[in-house]
Amino acid sequence: MQAVRAHLIHSPERGRIERIEDALVSFDAAGQIVRVADGNSAPANIDLRSQGVLLPGLVDLHIHAPQFPQLGTGLDVPLEDWLSKYTFPLEARFADLTYAAFVHDALVRRLLANGTTTAVYFATIHGPSSLNLAETCLRLGQRAFVGKVAMDLAGACPDYYRDSDAAASINETADFIKAVRAMPGNDLVEPIITPRFIPSCSDDALAGLGELAASTGAAVQTHCSESDWEHGFVLNRMGKTDASALDEFGLLTRRSVLAHAGHITDADMDLIAERGAGIAHCPLSNAYFGNAVFPLRRALAKALHIGLGTDISGGHSAFLLDNARASVTASRMLEEGVDPSKDAANRGVDASRIDFRDAFYMATKGGAEVLDLPVGAFKAGLQMDAILVNLVDDFGPVEDLLQKIIMRATPAEITQTWVAGKCVSAPMVHPDQSV
Amino acid sequence: MQAVRAHLIHSPERGRIERIEDALVSFDAAGQIVRVADGNSAPANIDLRSQGVLLPGLVDLHIHAPQFPQLGTGLDVPLEDWLSKYTFPLEARFADLTYAAFVHDALVRRLLANGTTTAVYFATIHGPSSLNLAETCLRLGQRAFVGKVAMDLAGACPDYYRDSDAAASINETADFIKAVRAMPGNDLVEPIITPRFIPSCSDDALAGLGELAASTGAAVQTHCSESDWEHGFVLNRMGKTDASALDEFGLLTRRSVLAHAGHITDADMDLIAERGAGIAHCPLSNAYFGNAVFPLRRALAKALHIGLGTDISGGHSAFLLDNARASVTASRMLEEGVDPSKDAANRGVDASRIDFRDAFYMATKGGAEVLDLPVGAFKAGLQMDAILVNLVDDFGPVEDLLQKIIMRATPAEITQTWVAGKCVSAPMVHPDQSV
Repeated sequence: MQAVRAHLIHSPERGRIERIEDALVSFDAAGQIVRVADGNSAPANIDLRSQGVLLPGLVDLHIHAPQFPQLGTGLDVPLEDWLSKYTFPLEARFADLTYAAFVHDALVRRLLANGTTTAVYFATIHGPSSLNLAETCLRLGQRAFVGKVAMDLAGACPDYYRDSDAAASINETADFIKAVRAMPGNDLVEPIITPRFIPSCSDDALAGLGELAASTGAAVQTHCSESDWEHGFVLNRMGKTDASALDEFGLLTRRSVLAHAGHITDADMDLIAERGAGIAHCPLSNAYFGNAVFPLRRALAKALHIGLGTDISGGHSAFLLDNARASVTASRMLEEGVDPSKDAANRGVDASRIDFRDAFYMATKGGAEVLDLPVGAFKAGLQMDAILVNLVDDFGPVEDLLQKIIMRATPAEITQTWVAGKCVSAPMVHPDQSV
Repeated sequence: MQAVRAHLIHSPERGRIERIEDALVSFDAAGQIVRVADGNSAPANIDLRSQGVLLPGLVDLHIHAPQFPQLGTGLDVPLEDWLSKYTFPLEARFADLTYAAFVHDALVRRLLANGTTTAVYFATIHGPSSLNLAETCLRLGQRAFVGKVAMDLAGACPDYYRDSDAAASINETADFIKAVRAMPGNDLVEPIITPRFIPSCSDDALAGLGELAASTGAAVQTHCSESDWEHGFVLNRMGKTDASALDEFGLLTRRSVLAHAGHITDADMDLIAERGAGIAHCPLSNAYFGNAVFPLRRALAKALHIGLGTDISGGHSAFLLDNARASVTASRMLEEGVDPSKDAANRGVDASRIDFRDAFYMATKGGAEVLDLPVGAFKAGLQMDAILVNLVDDFGPVEDLLQKIIMRATPAEITQTWVAGKCVSAPMVHPDQSV
């Protein structure tokens, strides 16, 4: 049993922010929080009170690991061109396991340093590089879902970068699930079934992966109604929306993560809510590839599970809080509209704004709910995943601290990252070491 | 004479990016660049080649120094309420010179660490606190324009925070100009005439400040057509737009900086271009207080002088590159539109996007042009104002480096800041010391 003494801020439910000054968080060897009590109620192993405030760790619901080398670039063309011009050639390089291992190590360390305690990854089509990513997360101590990407549709996918056929997509995914589950000492990393998106998968592959979701109980991730092109392509091929089609293939489950979803309909929202599936809202990426702003507040009002994603590298930042604040900014721009030549009354969409409280919830407990994981707040029974934030230039009342962190903290101000009760990143701690 | 050996990237003209591998920048004791030559053409005092890339220093055209304590907060109400609810009470505290000096010291150090080599500041209505800000910039080595805020209109300004009358606005501004110009050893800081905006100033004050601009040759800054409310208020009171009214008061000059300008008309743009005045584009602030996106590309096409501003604390970041990338993002959102329920064809404004090259130019040479200052590029005759950027996790080709810096560099990756040939901020260098 260990105990950390610290000031805490968390949002155990959407709309409720709780600040606990001088708390003692006790957790067992498996990282499970046993008790949150007064700071002086028992001895502490570590006292962080003078070093900042402890928040729940950040949950990033959508990351393409192999795209990390092009982070911040390739933002000049639409999605359908971006894939073939930049992204497929880069992902294909991960056939080289040495290159893959180098990028994975750098990425996971960077995300841990940035406070991402849970990451949901698209890897590549390659089994070995995908497994290396899972191993890297486990070795460096990051909670993760890792998916071998399934994409088999000739014509839609380049010959140099696709599964050979639907059977390969299904069988290699099944093998990958087994391999991740069999990693020695694995209590952090889960496999996730990952059809890239409907446009790159055959009906057979989608159906087979849906069956695999049912038979293995594994989580599912894919892109959903991401852009005008993607949404229209699926409508045209399937005669229905992404969400409906995914549902028919058995891919819309309580454990499904739908990335983007900017163009989903009200009926889609209802279906997603009914299935208990979740959405990875990626506001920075959407500004470049989504053609519109995801109607977040409308979806929240329907009680959908929604968290945040960086969408490395469709999004240009590896810091989830950049997306937290961008989710606020984008919601304001949806509400206000963008074109000053229009009358204010006809410019935007009323009642679209969210604030930093919603963004904080999505970045922590909201993301955890999407994944049905016991993380995201400081409560007995949940895992001790946390970040220590030491905001510089903080002059104001403590009541404003959370808002300042959400709206302006930089990665350098995340000074410790804890996963499952271990400090896995800190300026003076090598990620391979625990405290 | 000193010489720095480094890899350089700059944008001496809009649309042209130049990368010089292994250059030698020689400059004199006054910080003026004498020669840019091959790296091995002469001995160097300092060799930075292994530590990153040297860019021109960042020019932040719009900062409210006294609002730094509330950075990241107070984003929940519109401009006209924000002023009275949060901002005027905070600014009024700067009557306390001890508090003012504390905040100014922290702000200028923060901005230097973030790479801002030239800053254009609104101070407060108080002469002493405004002068303290000018002294702080000079002491810490930041190039700056500092303005004592003029706002005299009873009713529009609270009694606890306004100039007593128009004569006070004018005379205190005149005194402030003299005091700044008389600071011993001042080769870095200029006074700037600062009517807050038309809604808070009487006609008499505006006319007197316009005369002062003519008689002193001082620069001018104010807010212009910032929001629906502000733009409409001026239309209603003056029967004309902000830009026209400012022009009639003699406040639209080659040395004027207009903050925001989101709602200016085409005729305003033509007038601003004719006068050679400039615009401080503040995309993050505009998302919260502007009600729309400034039509940047249209203004650039009319050859207006345009740079970037953080608008601390209307904007929630003290890092100009956050606004550089937000200028790209906002331009994309203007082009694409925001409401997914609209047809793509009727959603946005065609041909609105800019890219990282434009953002880089605005953050450096574009800002310098607005101010008519000899900074913003590496060229003989310009000042040696520069930042060393050491991007971590940089895997790609050097051709992508600038784009990555503009779209994703964090403040911690700005590892040195040089103003007028002196290193004024670096992890191992105290801002009071020069190299």
